[in-house]
Amino acid sequence: MRDIVDRVRPEVHMALVHHPVHNKTGDIVTTAVTNLDIHDNARSARTFGLSSYHIVTPLSAQIELVRRILGHWTAGYGGKRVPTRLEAMSLIRISRTLDETIEAVIAGRNVKPYIVATGARRRATPVVPYAQLRKRMQEEAGPYLLLFGTGYGLAEPVFDLCDAVLEPIGDPDGWNHLSVRSAAAITLDRLLGER
Amino acid sequence: MRDIVDRVRPEVHMALVHHPVHNKTGDIVTTAVTNLDIHDNARSARTFGLSSYHIVTPLSAQIELVRRILGHWTAGYGGKRVPTRLEAMSLIRISRTLDETIEAVIAGRNVKPYIVATGARRRATPVVPYAQLRKRMQEEAGPYLLLFGTGYGLAEPVFDLCDAVLEPIGDPDGWNHLSVRSAAAITLDRLLGER
Repeated sequence: MRDIVDRVRPEVHMALVHHPVHNKTGDIVTTAVTNLDIHDNARSARTFGLSSYHIVTPLSAQIELVRRILGHWTAGYGGKRVPTRLEAMSLIRISRTLDETIEAVIAGRNVKPYIVATGARRRATPVVPYAQLRKRMQEEAGPYLLLFGTGYGLAEPVFDLCDAVLEPIGDPDGWNHLSVRSAAAITLDRLLGER
Repeated sequence: MRDIVDRVRPEVHMALVHHPVHNKTGDIVTTAVTNLDIHDNARSARTFGLSSYHIVTPLSAQIELVRRILGHWTAGYGGKRVPTRLEAMSLIRISRTLDETIEAVIAGRNVKPYIVATGARRRATPVVPYAQLRKRMQEEAGPYLLLFGTGYGLAEPVFDLCDAVLEPIGDPDGWNHLSVRSAAAITLDRLLGER
């Protein structure tokens, strides 16, 4: 049975955070933008009907790189050659900080997005099961903002901004090292995929 | 409720097929191996407890490339630096053909793997819902072999080898262009992820 009858089509945004995130030793760092993170997540975002996909990095050189990639796909030859990719890449936005992302999601409206962090580590803070957030998204239109960390995961200050934290995917006491591309795809499917 | 009580732990293998697959215009081609396909799918395979992950390509130069990458991660510096990645990469096998993959899965035993194709296109052939294959995997130990196509998808002769075909992910009449890395992650989660 597909639960598509009478359900709300929620407004969902996602952000891939390059700062502040942890490195292997737990320091707070800025990671480099990865071309395939841009593409794969944009394709997942488009598949599951997201409203935007924000690349968050404070580094001007990295922002310039993302702009060049986007230019190729949204205004240049790439989008002409593969129009479906243009559709996915059109969802991408660039922010210097998470605050900028949140402002862009609000976009002048009188709304507060429901902000949800993801991560591979088990946390003491309240965790929302996927089924519960999925149900909420079917009942309340949002906006929602899903945060994904690069490197070794979102740094602690990010969690202070969040209304909820999703459970880790896989066994948090076992082997738990999905790529952020795979984790984001699974998260969107669990929340928004047809059942 | 998690359905882990009394269920079988199935033996599941996956293969990423570089030949025979379609290109954009429908011809049957051999695609190039992509480094991130190797890594991302190996990490997904390890997360969901798969027994092996086969890279299928007939091209000797590509096989040599995969061997070099594996050497770095299983015997070389990469695995020392990131031991969890070594664990994921240790699942990788190399085959020249799908027949070789099937032989490797059988491994001299008197078993026939239950072979399942995936793909983004809607097909006329019988399609097995994810929930049905998930239930089978909880009741029958397998072995199972999941096939993922690169390029524009598995070529028709591959489907003749298969016992079942999974539904496309996303809306097959709408925008339906996940990366094979994201599609594989979602497929494994739907079949084997904790609920």
